Amino acid sequence: MIPRYSRPDMVAIWSPETKFRIWFEIEAHACDAQAAIGVIPKAAAEAVWKAKDVTFDIARIDEIEAVTKHDVIAFLTHLAEHVGEEARFVHQGMTSSDVLDTCFNVQLTRAADIIIADLEGLLEALKRRAYEHKDTVRIGRSHGIHAEPVTMGLTFARFYAEMKRNLARMKTARAEIATGAISGAVGTFANIDPSVEEHVCKALGLTAEPISTQVIPRDRHAAFFAAMGVVSSSIENIAIEIRHMQRTEVLEAEEFFSKGQKGSSAMPHKRNPVLTENLTGLARLVRMAVVPALENVALWHERDISHSSVERNIGPDTTITLDFALARLTSVVDKLVVYPDTMMKNLEKFRGLVHSQRVLLALTQKGVSREDSYTLVQRNAMKVWEQGADFMAELKADPDVRAALSEAEIEEKFDLGYHTKHVDTIFARVFG
Amino acid sequence: MIPRYSRPDMVAIWSPETKFRIWFEIEAHACDAQAAIGVIPKAAAEAVWKAKDVTFDIARIDEIEAVTKHDVIAFLTHLAEHVGEEARFVHQGMTSSDVLDTCFNVQLTRAADIIIADLEGLLEALKRRAYEHKDTVRIGRSHGIHAEPVTMGLTFARFYAEMKRNLARMKTARAEIATGAISGAVGTFANIDPSVEEHVCKALGLTAEPISTQVIPRDRHAAFFAAMGVVSSSIENIAIEIRHMQRTEVLEAEEFFSKGQKGSSAMPHKRNPVLTENLTGLARLVRMAVVPALENVALWHERDISHSSVERNIGPDTTITLDFALARLTSVVDKLVVYPDTMMKNLEKFRGLVHSQRVLLALTQKGVSREDSYTLVQRNAMKVWEQGADFMAELKADPDVRAALSEAEIEEKFDLGYHTKHVDTIFARVFG
Amino acid sequence: MIPRYSRPDMVAIWSPETKFRIWFEIEAHACDAQAAIGVIPKAAAEAVWKAKDVTFDIARIDEIEAVTKHDVIAFLTHLAEHVGEEARFVHQGMTSSDVLDTCFNVQLTRAADIIIADLEGLLEALKRRAYEHKDTVRIGRSHGIHAEPVTMGLTFARFYAEMKRNLARMKTARAEIATGAISGAVGTFANIDPSVEEHVCKALGLTAEPISTQVIPRDRHAAFFAAMGVVSSSIENIAIEIRHMQRTEVLEAEEFFSKGQKGSSAMPHKRNPVLTENLTGLARLVRMAVVPALENVALWHERDISHSSVERNIGPDTTITLDFALARLTSVVDKLVVYPDTMMKNLEKFRGLVHSQRVLLALTQKGVSREDSYTLVQRNAMKVWEQGADFMAELKADPDVRAALSEAEIEEKFDLGYHTKHVDTIFARVFG
Amino acid sequence: MIPRYSRPDMVAIWSPETKFRIWFEIEAHACDAQAAIGVIPKAAAEAVWKAKDVTFDIARIDEIEAVTKHDVIAFLTHLAEHVGEEARFVHQGMTSSDVLDTCFNVQLTRAADIIIADLEGLLEALKRRAYEHKDTVRIGRSHGIHAEPVTMGLTFARFYAEMKRNLARMKTARAEIATGAISGAVGTFANIDPSVEEHVCKALGLTAEPISTQVIPRDRHAAFFAAMGVVSSSIENIAIEIRHMQRTEVLEAEEFFSKGQKGSSAMPHKRNPVLTENLTGLARLVRMAVVPALENVALWHERDISHSSVERNIGPDTTITLDFALARLTSVVDKLVVYPDTMMKNLEKFRGLVHSQRVLLALTQKGVSREDSYTLVQRNAMKVWEQGADFMAELKADPDVRAALSEAEIEEKFDLGYHTKHVDTIFARVFG
Repeated sequence: MIPRYSRPDMVAIWSPETKFRIWFEIEAHACDAQAAIGVIPKAAAEAVWKAKDVTFDIARIDEIEAVTKHDVIAFLTHLAEHVGEEARFVHQGMTSSDVLDTCFNVQLTRAADIIIADLEGLLEALKRRAYEHKDTVRIGRSHGIHAEPVTMGLTFARFYAEMKRNLARMKTARAEIATGAISGAVGTFANIDPSVEEHVCKALGLTAEPISTQVIPRDRHAAFFAAMGVVSSSIENIAIEIRHMQRTEVLEAEEFFSKGQKGSSAMPHKRNPVLTENLTGLARLVRMAVVPALENVALWHERDISHSSVERNIGPDTTITLDFALARLTSVVDKLVVYPDTMMKNLEKFRGLVHSQRVLLALTQKGVSREDSYTLVQRNAMKVWEQGADFMAELKADPDVRAALSEAEIEEKFDLGYHTKHVDTIFARVFG
Repeated sequence: MIPRYSRPDMVAIWSPETKFRIWFEIEAHACDAQAAIGVIPKAAAEAVWKAKDVTFDIARIDEIEAVTKHDVIAFLTHLAEHVGEEARFVHQGMTSSDVLDTCFNVQLTRAADIIIADLEGLLEALKRRAYEHKDTVRIGRSHGIHAEPVTMGLTFARFYAEMKRNLARMKTARAEIATGAISGAVGTFANIDPSVEEHVCKALGLTAEPISTQVIPRDRHAAFFAAMGVVSSSIENIAIEIRHMQRTEVLEAEEFFSKGQKGSSAMPHKRNPVLTENLTGLARLVRMAVVPALENVALWHERDISHSSVERNIGPDTTITLDFALARLTSVVDKLVVYPDTMMKNLEKFRGLVHSQRVLLALTQKGVSREDSYTLVQRNAMKVWEQGADFMAELKADPDVRAALSEAEIEEKFDLGYHTKHVDTIFARVFG
Repeated sequence: MIPRYSRPDMVAIWSPETKFRIWFEIEAHACDAQAAIGVIPKAAAEAVWKAKDVTFDIARIDEIEAVTKHDVIAFLTHLAEHVGEEARFVHQGMTSSDVLDTCFNVQLTRAADIIIADLEGLLEALKRRAYEHKDTVRIGRSHGIHAEPVTMGLTFARFYAEMKRNLARMKTARAEIATGAISGAVGTFANIDPSVEEHVCKALGLTAEPISTQVIPRDRHAAFFAAMGVVSSSIENIAIEIRHMQRTEVLEAEEFFSKGQKGSSAMPHKRNPVLTENLTGLARLVRMAVVPALENVALWHERDISHSSVERNIGPDTTITLDFALARLTSVVDKLVVYPDTMMKNLEKFRGLVHSQRVLLALTQKGVSREDSYTLVQRNAMKVWEQGADFMAELKADPDVRAALSEAEIEEKFDLGYHTKHVDTIFARVFG
Repeated sequence: MIPRYSRPDMVAIWSPETKFRIWFEIEAHACDAQAAIGVIPKAAAEAVWKAKDVTFDIARIDEIEAVTKHDVIAFLTHLAEHVGEEARFVHQGMTSSDVLDTCFNVQLTRAADIIIADLEGLLEALKRRAYEHKDTVRIGRSHGIHAEPVTMGLTFARFYAEMKRNLARMKTARAEIATGAISGAVGTFANIDPSVEEHVCKALGLTAEPISTQVIPRDRHAAFFAAMGVVSSSIENIAIEIRHMQRTEVLEAEEFFSKGQKGSSAMPHKRNPVLTENLTGLARLVRMAVVPALENVALWHERDISHSSVERNIGPDTTITLDFALARLTSVVDKLVVYPDTMMKNLEKFRGLVHSQRVLLALTQKGVSREDSYTLVQRNAMKVWEQGADFMAELKADPDVRAALSEAEIEEKFDLGYHTKHVDTIFARVFG
């Protein structure tokens, strides 16, 4: 976890304090359930809740773990220091993984909630900017080359649609990961009744894992990290668009540049899209968790612990980075400085050539063969390209073109409204 | 694509014949829609369908492409050779990507259908084997070390549950990818009415992409390949379990070994789990498509063509490999030779020590402190471990143990039924 | 393997014909060595060489393999059909992997030779273009934003230096993979003398693997594919540069565009950098082999066969793709159309602002404080930026600037030679 | 970075203290060089060294950075607080990346030195254990199935050979990364003489980068992280071997188990190979850096900053994890408890069947056809397999076998020395 790429709420989910708090809740709820079916005394279950408001002493737990070399035992030992003798009823019939795995999924579920909220915030910003620039015409580009006009609103709208899909993916991923298991050393409930699992999971907002081994199956986690990988690639997609827009020769938009920011203040042309470049890198960081998460699925028999070190890293790091990246991206989108004038200037760079495709189509629709239409358009286009002529003027002056198209018809082909006529339809599809 | 790891139905989806067939359907349906709104003559649309039963000449199309260096134009030129002059109305207002991208998604959707059917077949096999071995006791293992008893049915059941989740993931992935786009060079419908897209998509069983650029957004494909990556990791998970079961010292199961198979026939102990080893490798092949699919998401502006070469490879290769792997795995599961006797022998390897945890718990439940219980169990366990003694006999002979537990109580701790008592509950959760 | 992204020489390495030819050579050389130490009759060894000029019948071998389900046995059976009874001395004491693994490394070594030759060809093209454009000034960019002048020669030169490093990496990778093993079922030479391995390896241009198991250790292959992954990322690096140069607003270079090429011929502005976009995708394909190659390293005990299916794919596909990509890139570099005029036009886009950094430095060198220098530069720069003024004129007219710098000194700061003065030094470092 | 998977020396390399110390050295050495060529006063250069023994105040630098939003300027400002007015000569003609990139490579070079030392330590342990168990016979396994005998010394020796190759790879990687660049904003040395770069690099033990842009080319870093990825896969390879050896049914070795360790102390059979399982996971963590490092190579023009966030993570995390993993592995190897008795017991599991291959070969060498030999071996092997007979006894009793082999010849085929006869040769190849 890199502090500069993190936000406190997500970091808090992964703090030792939160972890021990969740452990406590799992153990305490389990005691309630055990008491309800008579396995342990009701008084013992009640006694455990004495620690409800305790802030556990991390240093003390670490100290015990240094001796026992077992984190859950260390925690239970420390818990006993608060609860007293009745602590011996805690954790009965349970295995460490019951606590660790259920806790991990609680943390991932909470992380998913933040990411879902992040996405909703991003969607709001994208939608606002989409409507703001619904009719701001800019040139569409394929292969980095001018193609036909689009609008900036459409650009925002397609990012909105993409992020909306990501929202759905994260919700699915959240549902996938929101399970818990209190099923014992090999998942058979040999030493603990399934009702305990049901109770604990319900209390924590989870579903009981239908069948677990010592651990919760890791295909769930793989799917979760894969979903984040897709989200991060969409972040990169938006970041790349903005980086292109800001490059000196294009300059159709700039990341908001705060006044105090130093470095290149004497070079006003030198406003670097450092936020979106940074997002490009952060996307790689989120994405790199996907492969190890997939490699974690195949555990030996009822479990091996190879997944654990991986998850200690990617659990916090990936969710923290993704949360930060989404927040940064939201801010970038929200404050992006858009330059409609430059957009129009860029669009007109080739004095009308952008409309050549339309003219071509018009000719064929008038009955000119595809081949002949090509030739007609091409010879006029070449004058624009090579001699800097004006495309519309050339077409009007070409008798073969005029044989098929009137002046008015030619002019009509240069109308930008032609390209934007379905923007409302598309917006209705995207925003409902 | 490696022929030996492929099956004909999936291969057929990716043949040039199928591709051109889908291209034809897209173009022909588009003509219908264009005719319906009066853009082209109804007769022209009808004329196109003259090619309905034509088997397109791949070699001829390749020949034309060698000149035009443009695959769609080559196809259209060839189509005109069948349709005649009216072919000039075909493809009007469309861009190559309208055809290519929609076709690719049709192919991926069909591939998903096969994979979904594969998964359903695998689920059936897993379910059958699960019920067959519901009560076949074997030792559960964590860290590769004997833990507590499970049943072979539980092993099959958890793979069933995992593959059931994969089925859901593939269905989601199929829905994600089943979109089409006929929206023109930059997605604005400048030269074509949105109703054409609606018509074509409906005819092909797709949803119209709400907002596209020149291409369908690649986050959909990333999610699709990521889903396959998760499925493949689950395949690896099952493969690893079987490989472990077959290793000489464990020998709890073997892949079915056909009589004619040569190689090690003179060494009956040398029946190699080559199918599941192969599946382990195939899983890596499926998984390796995930990263490039994620890298494909960030295209420049309204599209660049960097994704195309990647998809030409991973489109066929990944779906073909996954289909083959699922079919192979189904066959392995279906015919797996299970050895319940060896399972029992392995379970009893340490003369009762597998029950030590239960004895420990019993002691603490009788009021012996956790520490003292440990000591009691440990000193008897050590005799078993070091001197080959019988655990139950030692416990019965230990007066401190007997102070807490009667002979009958000790014997009861060695009852395997204790471990399997919730198997029916778990099966009900998994199979409903 | 995608035919359109392949070249015949590399494809030939991976043909069944080549494979069986190498198998034959391994077996025949092994017979020589076995005869030399008296294990088999000299006549038998000689008899084997009768098949020296045989073109093996792939279909026949496949037919036999369909029965035996064992590729090496199928080959040996077919070989016997040519050699006669003495064929029973072939393969004695050897294990299939001795043949398969040694053959695979021969193929990879030959593939490395082609890639090395490709890199040498690319280096030649880069060097030629570097010298051609040694003094062609263009604007250097950081973050996509104009920074200070460089030359196009420097751009080619740094790609040269990068590819030179890749050449060294591929030579190291080649040396790593050029080993063979004829060491028997578990690598102990139990049934075959180490001298056979020595002889075969020498005859095939390989080094004997110092210690093998049933197989050659896969860290070698991992290193080999990792090296190709690095090369492919450098290909992407060059491809991205060219794609940027060709984008409409920059247009400092274009991929060579053959006359016949159709598609956008009526839109002269629409020359798409499809080759470099394609290279971007191909780079992803080469790179995707790295992770499975790394996953292949950890085999169970003396070998499992999980690596095999992976290598059947990435062996040919990755080398074929990389070979094709390098050849394509060489052609792109070789024929790249460079536009020095546009380069100069782009450089002057902001009427001298590109020199602001130099002016700033000059002021501080004259003793003006860093803060004051900033202010001076900034206020003049802003006039250029906001009002379209000329930077040099503004500076000359600013009394505070003039207090520190004379007219001549100001003019000197706008000299492009200042930026190119060390180009020869750098070229000497790079090209020696 | 996960504290529990880190060691202090490697962590120290990545501390802010170390970073600022290196920054200082770069700046101070640069001043010396600038003074030597008369760009700045000698006194100024000397003044900078006043800060030689200063411990920089991280909090103060952070404070300044919070305002300036620029790390290098923040550092320089703080440096000025120690050096005084002459600080204005510091950093002249340099760009931030000159400092940042050179510093990063110093850190990676130092990290490489630690990893190289780690590897040397591991090699020592492997060599010692190899000689210790040179003649400890165990069964070799292919596909997890018994094949032919090997020795435990050979297992250690092949890991030695593999790690020796990794040592060479890391040395190459170290040489690749040990470069520095002080070449200005776009790498042209416009504002700074190349001699400064030479001087600084030499003083820091680096080579001057022959051609840089604003940054050092990232193919170097990609190769560096790829090398670490290969090392980590070899770690996994050894870890998997040990995990297999420790599994209950095999039990040929165990990780050293310290007395105090709790958890399963009452279950002596439950000693889990948690260290090697952990290493399996750590290997995945190291490996996951390879893809983003490869993705970092393609920067836009003379640099974009997308690589930076990636490197902030993988720079420290990957080197720290690999260092920890190598140290842990060395300890595991060093203290591995090997059980030669179990090895022998496992080898004899099938009462002589392990020698069937030798018998087969002996028969063919006596002139029996391959097919007949198979049949003979097979029918006796089957009695062992199905009825628990003794293989040698059955062979002796089989008249057809005896027609080809005498009793003594049969007995000779069961001699383990046959399999170990070349161990010394192999050791000589490996250890020289």
